[in-house]
Amino acid sequence: MTINLALIHYPVLNRKGEIITSAVTNLDIHDIARACRTYGVDNYFIVTPSQDQQNLVKELIQHWLHGPGGKTNPDRKEALQLVKVVDSLEEIKAKLRPSAIYATTASKTDGCLDWMELRKKIEIGEKDNILLLFGTASGLAKSVIMESNRALCPINGPTPYNHLSVRSAVAIGLDRLLGNWRI
Amino acid sequence: MTINLALIHYPVLNRKGEIITSAVTNLDIHDIARACRTYGVDNYFIVTPSQDQQNLVKELIQHWLHGPGGKTNPDRKEALQLVKVVDSLEEIKAKLRPSAIYATTASKTDGCLDWMELRKKIEIGEKDNILLLFGTASGLAKSVIMESNRALCPINGPTPYNHLSVRSAVAIGLDRLLGNWRI
Repeated sequence: MTINLALIHYPVLNRKGEIITSAVTNLDIHDIARACRTYGVDNYFIVTPSQDQQNLVKELIQHWLHGPGGKTNPDRKEALQLVKVVDSLEEIKAKLRPSAIYATTASKTDGCLDWMELRKKIEIGEKDNILLLFGTASGLAKSVIMESNRALCPINGPTPYNHLSVRSAVAIGLDRLLGNWRI
Repeated sequence: MTINLALIHYPVLNRKGEIITSAVTNLDIHDIARACRTYGVDNYFIVTPSQDQQNLVKELIQHWLHGPGGKTNPDRKEALQLVKVVDSLEEIKAKLRPSAIYATTASKTDGCLDWMELRKKIEIGEKDNILLLFGTASGLAKSVIMESNRALCPINGPTPYNHLSVRSAVAIGLDRLLGNWRI
């Protein structure tokens, strides 16, 4: 089984609900790569159609994988090895042929999949090639959610406030699915 | 019951295990405030003895609470209202008189408390004024762990890699204790 994660920068929504291409955030690359490495994720795809943004990410990764960064901080190098820069979700689908794609969203969607249900599916090895989608800015465009097999239910605490950073949402999601805790 | 969280910048360890004062990171303020607001944390203390650093944090919060930031992004304002800047753990203890202090660490400590045990204690209301301590840089100095009642067990996935960012560790920890999931 492989677990894969994609951080989508297009198509995503802005605060007004319009479709935009968001800019790649440096700490999204680092924090999410470290979380992916911790939880045994196989590939961390950074999805943006912007060639400028792709080049920036590649340059940064180069610094950590082959430049001075990795020498002083080998843990970071190990995490950033998981990063792959791609143009689109279509490119990932063509390369990876995932058996199931799960979108994440902060708003309640009908028939959403409970994270613990997916944890159980992973534990019994029911799915063999999972792709998890996370949106930057104000979240994934509806078209991306439609392209997935299911949307996972929103991550919430005991309050109605649902404005976690995507870095936090990824960390929590991976721990819900793959963390070393037991009830 | 209140749940409180402190992000410690002194005394913490550097990569060599020496005691240092770390610099405050902008995204630690934002991401952790948003996670605290999501999970109903009552106070988010940023602990640093550096007056310069304290002033920087206060200036940033001012921008979001009373300046232009909060007008364009009221959700962020709501989260940053939880932030309090303090000199030391001692100051928090004197003000808050917590009934239990829990330290977090990435390395296994003897007799560590399982996160799910603490979740159960919170659910039944056994503890009424909890303070959770998280360390920046390479983690809390041993003296801080000694000052707490218990250390929580390390957050791990299925791999031995344990280099999450503190932002990720906080998000995961709060979800383990207070998340809207059920087995």
